[in-house]
Amino acid sequence: MNQVITIGREFGSGGRELGRRLAKELGVEYYDKEILTAIAKHTSLSEEYVQQVVERQPHQLYPITTGRSFIYLDTQPFQQASTVFQAQQEIIREMAAKSPCVIVGRCADYILRDSKPFRIFVYADLQSRIDRCRSRAEAGESMTDKEYLKQIQEMDKARSKYYAFYTDMKWGDKLNYDLCINTTNQDIPALVPVLAKIFA
Amino acid sequence: MNQVITIGREFGSGGRELGRRLAKELGVEYYDKEILTAIAKHTSLSEEYVQQVVERQPHQLYPITTGRSFIYLDTQPFQQASTVFQAQQEIIREMAAKSPCVIVGRCADYILRDSKPFRIFVYADLQSRIDRCRSRAEAGESMTDKEYLKQIQEMDKARSKYYAFYTDMKWGDKLNYDLCINTTNQDIPALVPVLAKIFA
Repeated sequence: MNQVITIGREFGSGGRELGRRLAKELGVEYYDKEILTAIAKHTSLSEEYVQQVVERQPHQLYPITTGRSFIYLDTQPFQQASTVFQAQQEIIREMAAKSPCVIVGRCADYILRDSKPFRIFVYADLQSRIDRCRSRAEAGESMTDKEYLKQIQEMDKARSKYYAFYTDMKWGDKLNYDLCINTTNQDIPALVPVLAKIFA
Repeated sequence: MNQVITIGREFGSGGRELGRRLAKELGVEYYDKEILTAIAKHTSLSEEYVQQVVERQPHQLYPITTGRSFIYLDTQPFQQASTVFQAQQEIIREMAAKSPCVIVGRCADYILRDSKPFRIFVYADLQSRIDRCRSRAEAGESMTDKEYLKQIQEMDKARSKYYAFYTDMKWGDKLNYDLCINTTNQDIPALVPVLAKIFA
């Protein structure tokens, strides 16, 4: 069985960076946005729409009214979301079966539960997450702490609802993870080599 | 600054065993019940009474009616608990200042917060905790799952209330720890050498 590490993460906690660096440190595959691309290919949907689906529960999906090729979606958001989740399941299982890897998000911990992946959850306090969001903002982006806080809360809420909808479990509940890592005031590039020792 | 590792733990999660083995693996001091002995010595109270105090909030303490030397406790449980907590603070700070160590429980994470200890919380699912309690039961002890569950819930509740009373924080809330470790289905003797690599 390949060693698969799944990473759930609060928005702004640096979980994605931690996952990417951890995969590099361990010399294994890293999957994140690649999953969206694969789903889009698998379902013939656009990556943008897939992105919307994987970040929301089905009933939050707005009917797509632009583009005739999506005409059936207007009345079938649940079915469409279900198709996307099915594709996501298949793709994630294929990725895990292929080689050792790190998978960020996408309910991978739940999807792969039968093969016992090592499940990490990355979190941090709010101020630390705001600071991290600001530090990685694109040039010209200027948001107040309050605006970052709103963004963080909205993203966390969406992830939490999405996770709960498909897994029937509470997102971020430590019982669903093997290890929960607090990145408050932590330097992720320095943290990763230490963390990687666990898997060496 | 000495490296100090504090360990909070759910009852039956194996946190104490993990702490003891981790200290041994790292070749550092281990403090657990030693703290009670030191408090008793420091305050001239019996270890049994100190044990009661450190497991409960002051208003849960029953007046001690046996032994004339404790006469003043009848009306002063708050003051007595406060004295014990003060002694506990001093002792834990002395221990941390003396040498690198692992300290289990006793709000050590909070007491030492200014010197940034590495704060671990150990937890597990209920069935795993029941099984662990049973496996370490003394010969002749025979309890049902339901009885173990009751014991686990009572101990967790007491720890949670005690922690909240003295720290104003939520016991077991992952934000109060650097690392949370799930021991469900984990073999602690096998887990510790891997964990110890983080501190090597």
